[in-house]
Amino acid sequence: MHQLAAKLFPISRSITGQGFRDSLVILDNELGNIMKFHEIKSGEAVFDWIVPDEWNVKDAYIITPDGRKICDFKQNNLHLLGYSQPIHAKLSLDELSKHLYSLPNKPDAVPYVTSYYKKRWGFCISQNERKTLKDGIYEVFIDSTHDKNGVLNYADFIIPASNNTNDEILISTYLCHPSMANNELSGPVVATHLAKWLRERERERVKLKYNYRFVFIPETIGSIIYLSRNLTHLQKHVKAGFNLSCVGDDLAYSLIHTPNANTLADKAAMHVLKDKPNFKEYDFLDSGSDERQYCSPLINLPVCGICRSKYGEYESYHTSNDDLNFISQKGLEGSLNAMCEIIKTLEINAVYKNTVFCEPNLGKRGLYPTLSTTTNDKSTYYYRKFLALCDGKRDCIDIANRLNIKAYELENVVQKLLENGLISDEI
Amino acid sequence: MHQLAAKLFPISRSITGQGFRDSLVILDNELGNIMKFHEIKSGEAVFDWIVPDEWNVKDAYIITPDGRKICDFKQNNLHLLGYSQPIHAKLSLDELSKHLYSLPNKPDAVPYVTSYYKKRWGFCISQNERKTLKDGIYEVFIDSTHDKNGVLNYADFIIPASNNTNDEILISTYLCHPSMANNELSGPVVATHLAKWLRERERERVKLKYNYRFVFIPETIGSIIYLSRNLTHLQKHVKAGFNLSCVGDDLAYSLIHTPNANTLADKAAMHVLKDKPNFKEYDFLDSGSDERQYCSPLINLPVCGICRSKYGEYESYHTSNDDLNFISQKGLEGSLNAMCEIIKTLEINAVYKNTVFCEPNLGKRGLYPTLSTTTNDKSTYYYRKFLALCDGKRDCIDIANRLNIKAYELENVVQKLLENGLISDEI
Amino acid sequence: MHQLAAKLFPISRSITGQGFRDSLVILDNELGNIMKFHEIKSGEAVFDWIVPDEWNVKDAYIITPDGRKICDFKQNNLHLLGYSQPIHAKLSLDELSKHLYSLPNKPDAVPYVTSYYKKRWGFCISQNERKTLKDGIYEVFIDSTHDKNGVLNYADFIIPASNNTNDEILISTYLCHPSMANNELSGPVVATHLAKWLRERERERVKLKYNYRFVFIPETIGSIIYLSRNLTHLQKHVKAGFNLSCVGDDLAYSLIHTPNANTLADKAAMHVLKDKPNFKEYDFLDSGSDERQYCSPLINLPVCGICRSKYGEYESYHTSNDDLNFISQKGLEGSLNAMCEIIKTLEINAVYKNTVFCEPNLGKRGLYPTLSTTTNDKSTYYYRKFLALCDGKRDCIDIANRLNIKAYELENVVQKLLENGLISDEI
Repeated sequence: MHQLAAKLFPISRSITGQGFRDSLVILDNELGNIMKFHEIKSGEAVFDWIVPDEWNVKDAYIITPDGRKICDFKQNNLHLLGYSQPIHAKLSLDELSKHLYSLPNKPDAVPYVTSYYKKRWGFCISQNERKTLKDGIYEVFIDSTHDKNGVLNYADFIIPASNNTNDEILISTYLCHPSMANNELSGPVVATHLAKWLRERERERVKLKYNYRFVFIPETIGSIIYLSRNLTHLQKHVKAGFNLSCVGDDLAYSLIHTPNANTLADKAAMHVLKDKPNFKEYDFLDSGSDERQYCSPLINLPVCGICRSKYGEYESYHTSNDDLNFISQKGLEGSLNAMCEIIKTLEINAVYKNTVFCEPNLGKRGLYPTLSTTTNDKSTYYYRKFLALCDGKRDCIDIANRLNIKAYELENVVQKLLENGLISDEI
Repeated sequence: MHQLAAKLFPISRSITGQGFRDSLVILDNELGNIMKFHEIKSGEAVFDWIVPDEWNVKDAYIITPDGRKICDFKQNNLHLLGYSQPIHAKLSLDELSKHLYSLPNKPDAVPYVTSYYKKRWGFCISQNERKTLKDGIYEVFIDSTHDKNGVLNYADFIIPASNNTNDEILISTYLCHPSMANNELSGPVVATHLAKWLRERERERVKLKYNYRFVFIPETIGSIIYLSRNLTHLQKHVKAGFNLSCVGDDLAYSLIHTPNANTLADKAAMHVLKDKPNFKEYDFLDSGSDERQYCSPLINLPVCGICRSKYGEYESYHTSNDDLNFISQKGLEGSLNAMCEIIKTLEINAVYKNTVFCEPNLGKRGLYPTLSTTTNDKSTYYYRKFLALCDGKRDCIDIANRLNIKAYELENVVQKLLENGLISDEI
Repeated sequence: MHQLAAKLFPISRSITGQGFRDSLVILDNELGNIMKFHEIKSGEAVFDWIVPDEWNVKDAYIITPDGRKICDFKQNNLHLLGYSQPIHAKLSLDELSKHLYSLPNKPDAVPYVTSYYKKRWGFCISQNERKTLKDGIYEVFIDSTHDKNGVLNYADFIIPASNNTNDEILISTYLCHPSMANNELSGPVVATHLAKWLRERERERVKLKYNYRFVFIPETIGSIIYLSRNLTHLQKHVKAGFNLSCVGDDLAYSLIHTPNANTLADKAAMHVLKDKPNFKEYDFLDSGSDERQYCSPLINLPVCGICRSKYGEYESYHTSNDDLNFISQKGLEGSLNAMCEIIKTLEINAVYKNTVFCEPNLGKRGLYPTLSTTTNDKSTYYYRKFLALCDGKRDCIDIANRLNIKAYELENVVQKLLENGLISDEI
């Protein structure tokens, strides 16, 4: 996964443009070419928004009075203010300064700044470098285009359920950030490998109870477009969803709840994440990524945000320090495993009910010792206790929470009880 | 407010009689003569009670064996047992003693004692003075009348809503205590100034969403009478109510909850008071004033008790030490401000719902920066977060509690979002 | 009660057989012969189970190589593995060892072990004695019978309500254990004395609101049989039930909740037990006695488990150390008193509603002082507060919990308010 991130890292991406398209293709190749690509024309209205013109950049830099090239887009695409207008001009340092963005409290970092919806041009520079700039005439050059006849791109695909259900689990992530690693190559990379894991299970004939919808979009405008085009379907069929963002470090596990923290997505994610190291639970008010759109009042989809260190909570967030060293294979794997556990939890989860009055005779079925002893046999404990709680109302997550284990660890118990006809999902 | 209390202080009041009427007139003059005066005849049945005969006192005192006048009603009306029968007699100290009331554990205080519903006569005296009384013949003189053809008086008025609503907020207070300051001149004084503040807002053309019903009654029998005459109307229209008592000191803020602590009155009062210094929350079981009647099971109005130091919880309660020094202008103002905040909370409170799918584009409306930065702009924060929580179910208090600010501080946010058509109260 | 336990102690009991029948007769004699005896034939199917063959034992022992008789059933019936097959054979120590049961971590105790549903023979022995056994040939002798034409016995009786109600309280206990005292002679002994207490009240013409159903069964198979034969009736009429087990020591009070901890049984038991010394609250997952059957999902009766030290939680559990010294008259009485309090709580418990608008005039009924004072009169406090909370929704337990007293302590208050027509149970 880290190699995939490294491959994507240098590409200049924004919410529109060639870099976004190139990045989608790299991910699709990793997936075995299952993505469906979509586009929407610049200028089209989506809910309260207008799709911005497609932005592409050939080059951008500043020439200092002493002839040095600085803020070179080709060296680090973060140097260019996102969606900068083209310019070729000579300016005094004072005039230039109005177009420079730096972070006094993070002096070594180049900040990530954009201006999608208001025409601006500018460069991002570290505070340390900015302080070295001397008076004189600076040449600024930005060779960018804003194409009114362009498009905004995104992609999705579905890994289908084994049955005829329309129920879906939504996995959404975004790919519109330039050269930063955790935010946001980690999300697309983990989502891609999660899809690969699901397809692997398909090949191993593990049954899938849900359709899994994967969505790769530019942040905010992308989810707004996606919702505007798929709202009825999503509101009808999505049973739980997760927005993956900042899932590449190994410092914490974070869950951003839906507004009422009461959906199946919250329940399954809590069940899995609550025992992870450095787990942090965030209120919906702390949301800052596409879960804001998915959970907005009139949309109201059951979509949580999943992070390691949450966006905005780590030092290098939205700067050049969020690089390939900040994320790690171990961090990415931790996120992938957590998502696999969440999916296994959703897959096992169901409501069952006893078929037999009173406790059944487990001993004659080899599920309980025939000799009484004073010690509890843990291997048979869960048969008895699952049956005790299995009342046609509690689902497997409820029962697992009460038993203080993970729902997916009950897979064998559920399987054996079903085989023996002791429980049924016909409530 | 303290001056108004001082003007009322010397008047001899009881649940009936001229002193109560005189006190109402003083408050009405302060209000600009908007009170409606009501009376009910002595002997009339109200629910489980009978309106007592009207009691008036011309004079009352004791002459000691050595000729000194003590327990002089004209010096301090607390000396006379409330509703004392008339008497003019000579008695031994032993016989007199059966009619003297004092507090051994508060030896300097004259206690406040009444016997409304059983015929008694008596004097209240400090324990210190009582101990100085020597054997001998005492002359007792009480020139009081109990008029079977009298009346019990009370007053109310309504400050009307700006719209055609019938919804009411009830402010109730009582005025039946003789010369004590916190309990109970503070309640009528604060209620009077709260009404003045509301009328001031009327003049400033601030819209009122509710009708405000102010009630000035004798305690207990007064609220029982008021309810017996207005029950259907009150049960239909009162959305929240507050009984003001002991609101003149500056030592604490107290809320006495309704029986289930779940009405709009509880919610609005908690929202405002919870962050006040020395806030104390009391169960309905601790109620001791007219909220007992308003919240009794078959009445079941949403009426909380509001106090500073709660009745019964402070040392000078129901004694001559509850005087004009125990209350203060600062204390009265703190109560007035809290009530104004509660009213502003009720006025702003409503349930709104987004009109737009997904987050709206706040930037184009000047409600959000057009340049992305890594810092949260607090001035725009509340627009976004209010919209995020504004789901047609949460009211403004719910949202403000979640945002950890006061609902009335959201006034500008709500106003701007309404102006921009981004929220609507048509759920 | 301790004497009754001592009388029952030496009898060899199992889930079937003469010892169980003899024990029932002893209890029935104590009760004045009110039990109804029932039997079910061996081999009959009950829900998922088959009634086992009736087991009886004439003798059982081992002769050591040096001619000593050990593991003598007649000295201590725990020495024989429950439901052992008959055998008369000579064996090496190695071969014998496969049939010996001991507890290495409790070396002085003879364990209690059974094998009801798989054919085995064996002896239980203390680890200390086992270690003294030397190589050589051992003679084992078990003279037991397993009668296919036998029966399983149990008994029940009802102490009827004073009115025509069908509502029942279920008291269940079990009697299938051989010579152990707490588990389980304490349950039958306390249940017997609880029934005697109820009959005493009957004689004193105390009205009973409920029918009290007492059930004496063998554990597990007994409750399964009882439920299979009475399920419709029990599901329709049982309002609360309690399984009594391990109620003879004086170390703790334990409550094993129903699965959702929300039935009248949980509520009444919590109300009484929560203030007992060393009270411990257990989740239904900790259940291990007949409440497992009563609360199993398709049965779903409101039956809690009541213990002093819970089964499995005390050192001597299921060993020869659970003897007559472990239980005490004081312990048994504590349990009996707690059960009496629970029954008094259930009997007093009802939902009442005020009949009068506002507070009634308690003074004219002698339920409130006619003279105001600054002290709360506790004797009248409960009249006022009961009325304040008596809203047609809260029951007496709710009100008592709020008032921080016991519901049965409100008996006089409820009585006086009913007599005065101030409350009514016609909601």
